Amino acid sequence: MNNRLKQQLDFALEIDKEKNIFRQTHLSGHGRNENDAEHAWHMAIMAYLLQEYSNEPVDIAKVMLMCLIHDIVEIDAGDTYAYDAEGLKTQKAREDAAKERIFSLLPDEQKEELTALFDEFEAYETPESKFAHSMDNLQPLLLNNSNGGGDWREHGVTAEQVYGRQSKTRLGSEQLFEVVDRIIRENIEKGTIIN
Amino acid sequence: MNNRLKQQLDFALEIDKEKNIFRQTHLSGHGRNENDAEHAWHMAIMAYLLQEYSNEPVDIAKVMLMCLIHDIVEIDAGDTYAYDAEGLKTQKAREDAAKERIFSLLPDEQKEELTALFDEFEAYETPESKFAHSMDNLQPLLLNNSNGGGDWREHGVTAEQVYGRQSKTRLGSEQLFEVVDRIIRENIEKGTIIN
Repeated sequence: MNNRLKQQLDFALEIDKEKNIFRQTHLSGHGRNENDAEHAWHMAIMAYLLQEYSNEPVDIAKVMLMCLIHDIVEIDAGDTYAYDAEGLKTQKAREDAAKERIFSLLPDEQKEELTALFDEFEAYETPESKFAHSMDNLQPLLLNNSNGGGDWREHGVTAEQVYGRQSKTRLGSEQLFEVVDRIIRENIEKGTIIN
Repeated sequence: MNNRLKQQLDFALEIDKEKNIFRQTHLSGHGRNENDAEHAWHMAIMAYLLQEYSNEPVDIAKVMLMCLIHDIVEIDAGDTYAYDAEGLKTQKAREDAAKERIFSLLPDEQKEELTALFDEFEAYETPESKFAHSMDNLQPLLLNNSNGGGDWREHGVTAEQVYGRQSKTRLGSEQLFEVVDRIIRENIEKGTIIN
Protein backbone atom coordinates (compact mmCIF):
# COMPACT_ATOMS: atom_id res chain seq x y z
CA MET A 1 0.00 0.00 0.00
CA ASN A 2 1.43 3.41 -0.88
CA ASN A 3 2.03 6.00 1.81
CA ARG A 4 -0.75 8.33 0.65
CA LEU A 5 -3.43 5.67 0.97
CA LYS A 6 -1.99 4.57 4.30
CA GLN A 7 -2.28 8.14 5.63
CA GLN A 8 -5.89 8.35 4.44
CA LEU A 9 -6.84 5.05 6.06
CA ASP A 10 -5.05 6.00 9.29
CA PHE A 11 -7.15 9.17 9.38
CA ALA A 12 -10.31 7.18 8.64
CA LEU A 13 -9.59 4.94 11.61
CA GLU A 14 -8.66 7.84 13.88
CA ILE A 15 -11.96 9.68 13.37
CA ASP A 16 -13.82 6.58 14.53
CA LYS A 17 -13.10 7.98 18.01
CA GLU A 18 -15.60 10.79 17.41
CA LYS A 19 -18.32 8.22 18.14
CA ASN A 20 -17.16 8.21 21.75
CA ILE A 21 -17.54 11.96 22.27
CA PHE A 22 -20.89 12.49 23.94
CA ARG A 23 -22.90 15.71 23.99
CA GLN A 24 -25.39 17.15 26.45
CA THR A 25 -28.27 16.59 24.02
CA HIS A 26 -30.40 13.49 24.47
CA LEU A 27 -31.85 11.46 21.60
CA SER A 28 -35.59 11.73 20.96
CA GLY A 29 -37.83 9.35 22.91
CA HIS A 30 -35.94 10.36 26.09
CA GLY A 31 -32.95 8.41 24.83
CA ARG A 32 -29.30 8.38 25.81
CA ASN A 33 -26.88 11.25 25.21
CA GLU A 34 -26.05 11.85 21.58
CA ASN A 35 -22.51 11.51 20.25
CA ASP A 36 -20.72 13.87 17.89
CA ALA A 37 -20.65 11.53 14.89
CA GLU A 38 -24.39 10.90 14.82
CA HIS A 39 -25.05 14.59 15.48
CA ALA A 40 -22.93 15.44 12.42
CA TRP A 41 -24.73 12.82 10.32
CA HIS A 42 -28.08 14.30 11.32
CA MET A 43 -26.97 17.86 10.53
CA ALA A 44 -25.71 16.90 7.06
CA ILE A 45 -29.00 15.27 6.04
CA MET A 46 -31.00 18.17 7.49
CA ALA A 47 -28.81 20.64 5.60
CA TYR A 48 -29.56 18.86 2.35
CA LEU A 49 -33.31 18.67 2.93
CA LEU A 50 -33.67 22.21 4.29
CA GLN A 51 -31.31 24.01 1.87
CA GLU A 52 -34.22 25.96 0.36
CA TYR A 53 -34.46 27.94 3.62
CA SER A 54 -30.89 29.24 3.53
CA ASN A 55 -30.85 33.05 3.39
CA GLU A 56 -28.24 32.90 0.64
CA PRO A 57 -27.55 30.32 -2.07
CA VAL A 58 -25.11 27.67 -0.81
CA ASP A 59 -22.85 25.00 -2.28
CA ILE A 60 -24.72 22.22 -0.52
CA ALA A 61 -21.95 19.61 -0.92
CA LYS A 62 -19.64 21.99 0.90
CA VAL A 63 -22.21 22.57 3.66
CA MET A 64 -22.65 18.82 4.10
CA LEU A 65 -18.92 18.14 4.33
CA MET A 66 -18.58 21.03 6.77
CA CYS A 67 -21.31 19.50 8.92
CA LEU A 68 -19.65 16.09 8.78
CA ILE A 69 -16.19 17.27 9.88
CA HIS A 70 -16.99 20.22 12.18
CA ASP A 71 -16.63 18.27 15.43
CA ILE A 72 -13.62 16.07 14.60
CA VAL A 73 -11.43 18.29 16.82
CA GLU A 74 -13.52 17.21 19.79
CA ILE A 75 -11.81 13.81 19.67
CA ASP A 76 -9.00 15.53 21.58
CA ALA A 77 -10.70 18.69 22.83
CA GLY A 78 -13.91 17.11 24.12
CA ASP A 79 -17.39 18.54 23.73
CA THR A 80 -17.84 22.02 25.14
CA TYR A 81 -21.46 22.57 26.14
CA ALA A 82 -22.92 25.67 24.50
CA TYR A 83 -23.77 27.13 27.91
CA ASP A 84 -20.52 26.19 29.75
CA ALA A 85 -18.93 29.62 30.26
CA GLU A 86 -15.68 28.26 31.76
CA GLY A 87 -15.18 25.65 29.08
CA LEU A 88 -15.83 28.18 26.34
CA LYS A 89 -12.82 30.25 27.49
CA THR A 90 -10.33 27.51 26.64
CA GLN A 91 -12.24 25.93 23.76
CA LYS A 92 -10.33 27.58 20.93
CA ALA A 93 -6.86 26.67 22.20
CA ARG A 94 -7.91 23.06 22.82
CA GLU A 95 -9.52 22.76 19.41
CA ASP A 96 -6.58 24.37 17.55
CA ALA A 97 -4.16 21.80 18.98
CA ALA A 98 -6.56 18.99 18.08
CA LYS A 99 -7.03 20.31 14.56
CA GLU A 100 -3.27 20.30 13.99
CA ARG A 101 -2.76 16.79 15.33
CA ILE A 102 -5.71 15.07 13.70
CA PHE A 103 -5.73 16.66 10.25
CA SER A 104 -1.93 16.13 10.05
CA LEU A 105 -2.62 12.42 9.68
CA LEU A 106 -3.85 13.16 6.14
CA PRO A 107 -1.75 13.81 3.03
CA ASP A 108 -0.72 17.48 2.98
CA GLU A 109 -3.27 18.84 0.52
CA GLN A 110 -6.17 17.02 2.21
CA LYS A 111 -4.96 18.30 5.57
CA GLU A 112 -5.01 21.82 4.15
CA GLU A 113 -8.44 21.35 2.59
CA LEU A 114 -10.10 20.04 5.74
CA THR A 115 -8.34 22.57 7.95
CA ALA A 116 -9.56 25.38 5.69
CA LEU A 117 -13.09 23.99 5.75
CA PHE A 118 -13.05 23.72 9.54
CA ASP A 119 -11.70 27.29 9.82
CA GLU A 120 -14.37 28.51 7.42
CA PHE A 121 -17.05 26.90 9.57
CA GLU A 122 -15.63 28.52 12.70
CA ALA A 123 -15.32 31.96 11.09
CA TYR A 124 -19.10 32.26 10.54
CA GLU A 125 -18.67 34.44 7.46
CA THR A 126 -19.60 32.50 4.31
CA PRO A 127 -23.16 31.45 3.40
CA GLU A 128 -22.10 27.81 3.81
CA SER A 129 -20.74 28.40 7.31
CA LYS A 130 -23.82 30.32 8.39
CA PHE A 131 -26.19 27.65 7.13
CA ALA A 132 -24.11 24.82 8.66
CA HIS A 133 -24.26 26.68 11.99
CA SER A 134 -28.04 26.95 11.64
CA MET A 135 -28.12 23.16 11.45
CA ASP A 136 -25.73 22.88 14.41
CA ASN A 137 -28.23 24.91 16.43
CA LEU A 138 -31.51 23.61 15.04
CA GLN A 139 -30.70 19.90 15.28
CA PRO A 140 -30.24 19.67 19.09
CA LEU A 141 -33.13 22.09 19.64
CA LEU A 142 -35.48 19.76 17.73
CA LEU A 143 -34.35 16.77 19.79
CA ASN A 144 -34.52 18.63 23.07
CA ASN A 145 -37.96 20.05 22.29
CA SER A 146 -39.21 16.57 21.39
CA ASN A 147 -38.17 15.50 24.89
CA GLY A 148 -40.10 18.33 26.56
CA GLY A 149 -37.03 20.56 26.88
CA GLY A 150 -35.32 18.28 29.40
CA ASP A 151 -31.79 19.32 28.44
CA TRP A 152 -32.56 22.98 29.15
CA ARG A 153 -34.26 22.14 32.43
CA GLU A 154 -31.40 19.90 33.57
CA HIS A 155 -28.85 22.69 33.10
CA GLY A 156 -31.07 25.57 34.31
CA VAL A 157 -30.64 27.35 30.99
CA THR A 158 -32.08 30.87 30.66
CA ALA A 159 -33.93 32.50 27.78
CA GLU A 160 -31.05 34.93 27.41
CA GLN A 161 -28.60 32.04 26.95
CA VAL A 162 -30.78 30.24 24.43
CA TYR A 163 -31.42 33.39 22.43
CA GLY A 164 -27.73 34.26 22.63
CA ARG A 165 -26.93 31.06 20.81
CA GLN A 166 -29.99 30.77 18.59
CA SER A 167 -29.96 34.38 17.40
CA LYS A 168 -27.15 33.23 15.14
CA THR A 169 -29.46 30.67 13.58
CA ARG A 170 -31.12 33.56 11.75
CA LEU A 171 -27.80 34.48 10.09
CA GLY A 172 -28.16 31.23 8.15
CA SER A 173 -31.94 31.10 7.84
CA GLU A 174 -34.57 33.64 8.82
CA GLN A 175 -37.31 31.09 8.10
CA LEU A 176 -35.84 28.40 10.31
CA PHE A 177 -35.23 30.97 13.02
CA GLU A 178 -38.99 31.59 13.09
CA VAL A 179 -39.49 27.93 14.00
CA VAL A 180 -36.72 28.12 16.58
CA ASP A 181 -38.18 31.28 18.08
CA ARG A 182 -41.61 29.69 18.41
CA ILE A 183 -40.14 26.62 20.14
CA ILE A 184 -38.15 28.78 22.55
CA ARG A 185 -41.21 30.86 23.44
CA GLU A 186 -43.26 27.72 24.08
CA ASN A 187 -40.56 26.38 26.36
CA ILE A 188 -40.31 29.65 28.26
CA GLU A 189 -44.08 29.51 28.74
CA LYS A 190 -43.86 25.93 30.01
CA GLY A 191 -41.03 26.92 32.35
CA THR A 192 -38.45 24.55 30.84
CA ILE A 193 -36.38 27.60 29.87
CA ILE A 194 -35.92 30.11 32.70
CA ASN A 195 -37.21 33.57 31.82
CA MET B 1 -45.30 26.97 10.09
CA ASN B 2 -46.30 25.86 6.61
CA ASN B 3 -47.07 22.22 5.92
CA ARG B 4 -44.01 21.64 3.75
CA LEU B 5 -41.60 22.71 6.48
CA LYS B 6 -43.57 20.73 9.06
CA GLN B 7 -43.19 17.58 6.93
CA GLN B 8 -39.46 18.16 6.58
CA LEU B 9 -38.98 18.65 10.31
CA ASP B 10 -41.12 15.61 11.11
CA PHE B 11 -38.84 13.56 8.86
CA ALA B 12 -35.75 15.08 10.51
CA LEU B 13 -37.05 14.00 13.90
CA GLU B 14 -38.06 10.53 12.67
CA ILE B 15 -34.61 9.66 11.34
CA ASP B 16 -33.15 10.36 14.78
CA LYS B 17 -34.24 6.77 15.48
CA GLU B 18 -31.51 5.46 13.20
CA LYS B 19 -29.09 6.14 16.08
CA ASN B 20 -30.75 3.28 17.95
CA ILE B 21 -30.16 0.68 15.22
CA PHE B 22 -27.04 -1.24 16.20
CA ARG B 23 -24.85 -3.26 13.88
CA GLN B 24 -22.62 -6.27 14.44
CA THR B 25 -19.48 -4.18 13.93
CA HIS B 26 -17.66 -2.91 17.02
CA LEU B 27 -15.98 0.47 17.27
CA SER B 28 -12.18 0.58 17.22
CA GLY B 29 -10.42 0.19 20.56
CA HIS B 30 -12.65 -2.84 21.26
CA GLY B 31 -15.57 -0.48 21.72
CA ARG B 32 -19.32 -1.00 21.78
CA ASN B 33 -21.41 -1.99 18.77
CA GLU B 34 -21.69 0.69 16.12
CA ASN B 35 -25.03 2.22 15.16
CA ASP B 36 -26.29 2.93 11.65
CA ALA B 37 -26.11 6.73 11.89
CA GLU B 38 -22.47 6.88 12.88
CA HIS B 39 -21.63 4.17 10.33
CA ALA B 40 -23.24 6.35 7.62
CA TRP B 41 -21.35 9.42 8.84
CA HIS B 42 -18.08 7.51 8.67
CA MET B 43 -18.82 6.20 5.16
CA ALA B 44 -19.64 9.68 3.83
CA ILE B 45 -16.36 11.20 5.04
CA MET B 46 -14.38 8.22 3.77
CA ALA B 47 -16.10 8.51 0.38
CA TYR B 48 -15.03 12.13 0.12
CA LEU B 49 -11.42 11.49 1.12
CA LEU B 50 -10.99 8.33 -0.96
CA GLN B 51 -12.86 9.44 -4.10
CA GLU B 52 -9.63 9.35 -6.15
CA TYR B 53 -9.71 5.53 -5.91
CA SER B 54 -13.12 5.13 -7.52
CA ASN B 55 -12.86 3.05 -10.70
CA GLU B 56 -15.07 5.57 -12.50
CA PRO B 57 -15.55 9.32 -12.00
CA VAL B 58 -18.32 9.99 -9.47
CA ASP B 59 -20.54 12.88 -8.43
CA ILE B 60 -19.15 12.90 -4.90
CA ALA B 61 -22.02 14.93 -3.40
CA LYS B 62 -24.39 12.24 -4.62
CA VAL B 63 -22.20 9.48 -3.19
CA MET B 64 -22.09 11.23 0.17
CA LEU B 65 -25.85 11.71 0.33
CA MET B 66 -26.32 8.08 -0.71
CA CYS B 67 -24.04 6.99 2.12
CA LEU B 68 -25.89 9.18 4.61
CA ILE B 69 -29.38 7.86 3.78
CA HIS B 70 -28.70 4.26 2.75
CA ASP B 71 -29.64 2.73 6.12
CA ILE B 72 -32.67 4.88 7.04
CA VAL B 73 -34.98 1.96 6.16
CA GLU B 74 -33.41 0.00 9.00
CA ILE B 75 -35.33 2.16 11.47
CA ASP B 76 -38.24 -0.18 10.74
CA ALA B 77 -36.50 -3.13 9.09
CA GLY B 78 -33.62 -3.51 11.56
CA ASP B 79 -30.03 -4.26 10.66
CA THR B 80 -29.53 -7.44 8.68
CA TYR B 81 -26.05 -8.84 9.30
CA ALA B 82 -24.16 -9.37 6.06
CA TYR B 83 -23.68 -13.08 6.89
CA ASP B 84 -27.20 -13.80 8.22
CA ALA B 85 -28.60 -16.08 5.48
CA GLU B 86 -32.14 -16.29 6.98
CA GLY B 87 -32.44 -12.54 7.54
CA LEU B 88 -31.22 -11.80 4.03
CA LYS B 89 -34.20 -13.72 2.56
CA THR B 90 -36.76 -11.27 3.97
CA GLN B 91 -34.59 -8.16 3.93
CA LYS B 92 -35.95 -6.65 0.72
CA ALA B 93 -39.63 -6.90 1.68
CA ARG B 94 -38.95 -5.43 5.13
CA GLU B 95 -36.92 -2.59 3.68
CA ASP B 96 -39.43 -1.78 0.94
CA ALA B 97 -42.20 -1.30 3.48
CA ALA B 98 -39.91 0.87 5.61
CA LYS B 99 -38.88 2.95 2.64
CA GLU B 100 -42.51 3.70 1.80
CA ARG B 101 -43.46 4.67 5.35
CA ILE B 102 -40.44 6.76 6.25
CA PHE B 103 -39.84 8.67 3.02
CA SER B 104 -43.59 9.41 2.81
CA LEU B 105 -43.13 11.78 5.73
CA LEU B 106 -41.36 14.16 3.31
CA PRO B 107 -42.96 16.49 0.74
CA ASP B 108 -43.69 14.50 -2.42
CA GLU B 109 -40.74 15.54 -4.54
CA GLN B 110 -38.25 15.00 -1.72
CA LYS B 111 -39.82 11.61 -1.06
CA GLU B 112 -39.30 10.76 -4.72
CA GLU B 113 -35.75 12.04 -4.71
CA LEU B 114 -34.64 10.10 -1.64
CA THR B 115 -36.49 6.97 -2.74
CA ALA B 116 -34.76 7.13 -6.13
CA LEU B 117 -31.39 7.62 -4.45
CA PHE B 118 -31.98 4.68 -2.13
CA ASP B 119 -33.10 2.50 -5.08
CA GLU B 120 -30.04 3.58 -7.05
CA PHE B 121 -27.81 2.54 -4.16
CA GLU B 122 -29.52 -0.84 -3.92
CA ALA B 123 -29.35 -1.47 -7.69
CA TYR B 124 -25.51 -1.47 -7.72
CA GLU B 125 -25.35 -0.14 -11.27
CA THR B 126 -24.13 3.45 -11.32
CA PRO B 127 -20.56 4.53 -10.47
CA GLU B 128 -21.94 6.36 -7.41
CA SER B 129 -23.74 3.27 -6.14
CA LYS B 130 -20.69 1.06 -6.66
CA PHE B 131 -18.38 3.45 -4.85
CA ALA B 132 -20.84 3.96 -1.98
CA HIS B 133 -21.03 0.17 -1.60
CA SER B 134 -17.22 0.02 -1.50
CA MET B 135 -17.40 2.34 1.51
CA ASP B 136 -20.19 0.26 3.05
CA ASN B 137 -17.86 -2.74 2.88
CA LEU B 138 -14.51 -1.10 3.63
CA GLN B 139 -15.62 0.89 6.67
CA PRO B 140 -16.62 -2.05 8.92
CA LEU B 141 -13.66 -4.10 7.66
CA LEU B 142 -11.25 -1.38 8.83
CA LEU B 143 -12.88 -1.27 12.27
CA ASN B 144 -13.02 -5.03 12.60
CA ASN B 145 -9.41 -5.44 11.48
CA SER B 146 -8.31 -2.80 14.01
CA ASN B 147 -9.90 -4.99 16.68
CA GLY B 148 -8.01 -8.10 15.58
CA GLY B 149 -10.95 -9.41 13.51
CA GLY B 150 -13.14 -10.05 16.55
CA ASP B 151 -16.42 -9.61 14.66
CA TRP B 152 -15.49 -12.33 12.19
CA ARG B 153 -14.32 -14.64 14.95
CA GLU B 154 -17.48 -14.09 17.01
CA HIS B 155 -19.71 -15.13 14.12
CA GLY B 156 -17.49 -17.91 12.75
CA VAL B 157 -17.33 -16.21 9.38
CA THR B 158 -15.60 -18.05 6.52
CA ALA B 159 -13.26 -16.76 3.83
CA GLU B 160 -15.88 -17.65 1.25
CA GLN B 161 -18.44 -15.44 3.00
CA VAL B 162 -16.06 -12.51 3.36
CA TYR B 163 -14.91 -12.73 -0.24
CA GLY B 164 -18.53 -13.11 -1.36
CA ARG B 165 -19.30 -9.74 0.11
CA GLN B 166 -15.99 -7.99 -0.47
CA SER B 167 -15.60 -9.09 -4.08
CA LYS B 168 -18.13 -6.37 -4.81
CA THR B 169 -15.82 -3.79 -3.26
CA ARG B 170 -13.72 -4.07 -6.41
CA LEU B 171 -16.69 -3.01 -8.55
CA GLY B 172 -16.30 0.41 -6.94
CA SER B 173 -12.55 0.46 -6.48
CA GLU B 174 -9.89 -1.97 -7.64
CA GLN B 175 -7.27 -0.13 -5.59
CA LEU B 176 -9.22 -0.29 -2.35
CA PHE B 177 -10.01 -3.93 -3.00
CA GLU B 178 -6.26 -4.61 -2.96
CA VAL B 179 -6.17 -3.29 0.62
CA VAL B 180 -9.25 -5.31 1.53
CA ASP B 181 -7.78 -8.46 -0.01
CA ARG B 182 -4.55 -8.06 1.96
CA ILE B 183 -6.48 -7.59 5.22
CA ILE B 184 -8.61 -10.67 4.53
CA ARG B 185 -5.55 -12.80 3.75
CA GLU B 186 -3.86 -11.67 6.96
CA ASN B 187 -6.96 -12.57 8.97
CA ILE B 188 -7.21 -15.98 7.32
CA GLU B 189 -3.57 -16.56 8.24
CA LYS B 190 -4.22 -15.54 11.84
CA GLY B 191 -7.27 -17.80 11.93
CA THR B 192 -9.80 -15.05 12.66
CA ILE B 193 -11.49 -15.85 9.35
CA ILE B 194 -12.14 -19.56 8.82
CA ASN B 195 -10.46 -20.94 5.69
